[in-house]
Amino acid sequence: MTSTPPSTTEALDSVLDRARTASEKLENLRPADTARMLRGIADTLDAAGEELVPLAQRESNLPEGRLCGELARTTFQLRLFGDLVEEGAHLAATIDSPDPEWPTGARPDLRRVHLPIGPVLVFAASNFPFAFSVAGGDTASALAAGCPVVVKAHPGHPDLSRRTAALVEGALAEAGAPEGTFALVEGTDTARAALLDERIRAGAFTGSHGGGRALFDLACSRAEPIPFYAEMGSVNPAFVTPEAARRRGAEIARGYLDSYTLGVGQFCTKPGLLFVPREQQSTFEETLLAEVAKRSAAPMLNPDIEHAFHDTLASLRGHPAVRELVAGTSTEEGVSPTLLATGASEFLEHSDELLRECFGPVSVLVGYSDTTELFRVAERFSGELTATVHGEEDEQPVASLFGILRRRAGRLVWNGWPTGVSVTHAMQHGGPYPATTAPTHTSVGTAAVERFLRPVSFQNSPQAVLPEALRDDNPLGIPRRVDGVRHS
Amino acid sequence: MTSTPPSTTEALDSVLDRARTASEKLENLRPADTARMLRGIADTLDAAGEELVPLAQRESNLPEGRLCGELARTTFQLRLFGDLVEEGAHLAATIDSPDPEWPTGARPDLRRVHLPIGPVLVFAASNFPFAFSVAGGDTASALAAGCPVVVKAHPGHPDLSRRTAALVEGALAEAGAPEGTFALVEGTDTARAALLDERIRAGAFTGSHGGGRALFDLACSRAEPIPFYAEMGSVNPAFVTPEAARRRGAEIARGYLDSYTLGVGQFCTKPGLLFVPREQQSTFEETLLAEVAKRSAAPMLNPDIEHAFHDTLASLRGHPAVRELVAGTSTEEGVSPTLLATGASEFLEHSDELLRECFGPVSVLVGYSDTTELFRVAERFSGELTATVHGEEDEQPVASLFGILRRRAGRLVWNGWPTGVSVTHAMQHGGPYPATTAPTHTSVGTAAVERFLRPVSFQNSPQAVLPEALRDDNPLGIPRRVDGVRHS
Repeated sequence: MTSTPPSTTEALDSVLDRARTASEKLENLRPADTARMLRGIADTLDAAGEELVPLAQRESNLPEGRLCGELARTTFQLRLFGDLVEEGAHLAATIDSPDPEWPTGARPDLRRVHLPIGPVLVFAASNFPFAFSVAGGDTASALAAGCPVVVKAHPGHPDLSRRTAALVEGALAEAGAPEGTFALVEGTDTARAALLDERIRAGAFTGSHGGGRALFDLACSRAEPIPFYAEMGSVNPAFVTPEAARRRGAEIARGYLDSYTLGVGQFCTKPGLLFVPREQQSTFEETLLAEVAKRSAAPMLNPDIEHAFHDTLASLRGHPAVRELVAGTSTEEGVSPTLLATGASEFLEHSDELLRECFGPVSVLVGYSDTTELFRVAERFSGELTATVHGEEDEQPVASLFGILRRRAGRLVWNGWPTGVSVTHAMQHGGPYPATTAPTHTSVGTAAVERFLRPVSFQNSPQAVLPEALRDDNPLGIPRRVDGVRHS
Repeated sequence: MTSTPPSTTEALDSVLDRARTASEKLENLRPADTARMLRGIADTLDAAGEELVPLAQRESNLPEGRLCGELARTTFQLRLFGDLVEEGAHLAATIDSPDPEWPTGARPDLRRVHLPIGPVLVFAASNFPFAFSVAGGDTASALAAGCPVVVKAHPGHPDLSRRTAALVEGALAEAGAPEGTFALVEGTDTARAALLDERIRAGAFTGSHGGGRALFDLACSRAEPIPFYAEMGSVNPAFVTPEAARRRGAEIARGYLDSYTLGVGQFCTKPGLLFVPREQQSTFEETLLAEVAKRSAAPMLNPDIEHAFHDTLASLRGHPAVRELVAGTSTEEGVSPTLLATGASEFLEHSDELLRECFGPVSVLVGYSDTTELFRVAERFSGELTATVHGEEDEQPVASLFGILRRRAGRLVWNGWPTGVSVTHAMQHGGPYPATTAPTHTSVGTAAVERFLRPVSFQNSPQAVLPEALRDDNPLGIPRRVDGVRHS
């Protein structure tokens, strides 16, 4: 049914050669052909749901309903990128006609378009075995850009990875994709060798800070450095204003608990800190104490993740500035939520330790004394995927808080929770370091394709050698900017 | 008239503090205000031309006509970015309305826009004392993005740098820019300290490969790495097809000589290699020998540049695979052109040494035996700012040659020369490493602004906290994508 993917450097060599050969063919495909590939993968995975979901359940401990939803999200994402490719706006096709009067000297005929960057190495994540794994967002956006993809399988779900890869390869072959468009590899050493190989032109990663930073450093250390897009998670602070706490404290407390325990706390957008007014802190604590007790334990993704969770949790709960409100348990049924608490002044004093992401069902409630302290804690963050504000529209601190937070996070959430990451045009899933290594990009949403495109200009070139996107008669019918004027 | 800019770390600290403070004010400016700043700088520099050009002549040895043209280019560039800011397409404003039926789960109201990345450190170049220096393209594009700029002056033209900086600061103050929007610093140690400082959020550089790579490595080594956009020049190969050589060999030879000696060969787009059919090589050599003799010597930018030129030239002309056709001289009048030659098989054998950029008036003529060898040499390049083809439209190898070269260069030039870099929407001045450290970006043309923008999404947020670009009534009147539909 599935064979073992390359995990030796010899086998890797042939994978990378095939990827390079595919690269040269993919860049000449028409948008309709690329879209057909993406939709073919989506159809194939949808049709295999009854096989894939149980495999994912067995290897990830995630419930069936969640996995069915995640598979649907994954195939929708592939199709959305197919639509994007056919629309063609991502090519940013731009034409400037010759202009002898141009102020910087006679302007030649210049035409600029985005071309694929070349073979992309994708590091799959464990917590979304479909949406951020073999056929997930990085793969979909790289294929949409016209790049071959080599996926490094996450060891958390090896059988699902292999089976998904076989289905992707089959779907690509059926859609007429060049051989070598997609490959799966396994093993850390193989992946490191691939990342250092000149045939790989960009890397994408979703996972821990330690892993992401080590791979980013490796990509930058190459004789020919390449872009490396690592999404490394964050603490995702949430802030409750005084007025919101007074009016809707209990509702906010329940929403917070739902969000930080969703998926057993294994979301990179989990709210790891909730800042509440000190005078309301005890009310929040009482509500949460009553609610946490009702939550049952659930298994984490795999023993490695659970082990890492307990390690980080131990250092958090053992911290002298931290009070433990609810001590989660760890039994055969799984892990139950932990709730910790501290004050804003303690947070400010110990923010280095308290800003560590703890991947799992734990969060820290932090009481702040006044607006000045609220702003001071908000200013302590440097790079977050998300920041959340619960407040009232006419409340004084809200605008300032947004002003502080929008410099520090990729997505600002108002009166909601950050754990749902919609796949749309307007999604931003990224942020300044340490949330990611690439603050100018997103890894979710259609703009994710931009990571894998490089611009090329053609000067005075004949129609026959121009990419179709740049030819006079616009055979692809795509939006272009011509002599400064944008045409939709 | 001008004071000495900060060159101590104490003074730097205050520069960076002011830049950070300015950053928070700049991001709330309206486009018209930012455009007024850019146009104010342009007007001020234009008005000071009679003072600045002689200063530049004295410090760069470049002729008056060239410097007047370069100043005009620089101020045009500032105004073009002003126009871009007012148009607003670079903000990529995107709105997705709430949609309960969205396939990945009920979609919230999501709105995405590009915000400034924060204070930018610009390393000025020596060879364009206006266009790639204090008020050059990096500064203009960073200001257009809404970022404060700290320029590290190039030591090649200290007085011009200081005077330009004083004029820029004055123009900014008059245009109402926040204090700290712009600053000049001097000295390598100061610049290194700035690059490592957390208040600097991106860096841009134009210069040598050694300098660019060292600074890129430093930027990546930070506890919080930042994007570093280094444009490090390249060899810019030019290829002459058999038919073009037969029909227009002498004309091409003269154009080549004009291009590689333009500005005493001190352009990052200088054609450093010309590949010609072997059977035409002697004709090319004869034409060039006659023409080179007519060219007079001219002074290089400064003694450091001339010294580096002679060092690199010595290793090239002393290479066993290289023949010296014309030995340039170096006298009090300056440096006269050198012309070297080799064969394609020698080039393939020694490409590591022959692919080194030699900044100055030298180029290498390379004879190739047939189309197969032509393609093989083209494939040897990995990252070039430009690649040039002289050919006939209906000639067989042209399409394949473009296919090979467009994967390796940022700009492809047909039947022309790469040394003119027009400032337009469709310009791409960049390329894969080693031409730059950022293959997905350009440092010339309006797209250069993208380097200094980071996307942020707002989820379900009240109108009052949204950037104007995202408000319902589109008060800026900018192009946006709303529910997937692009509105110009």
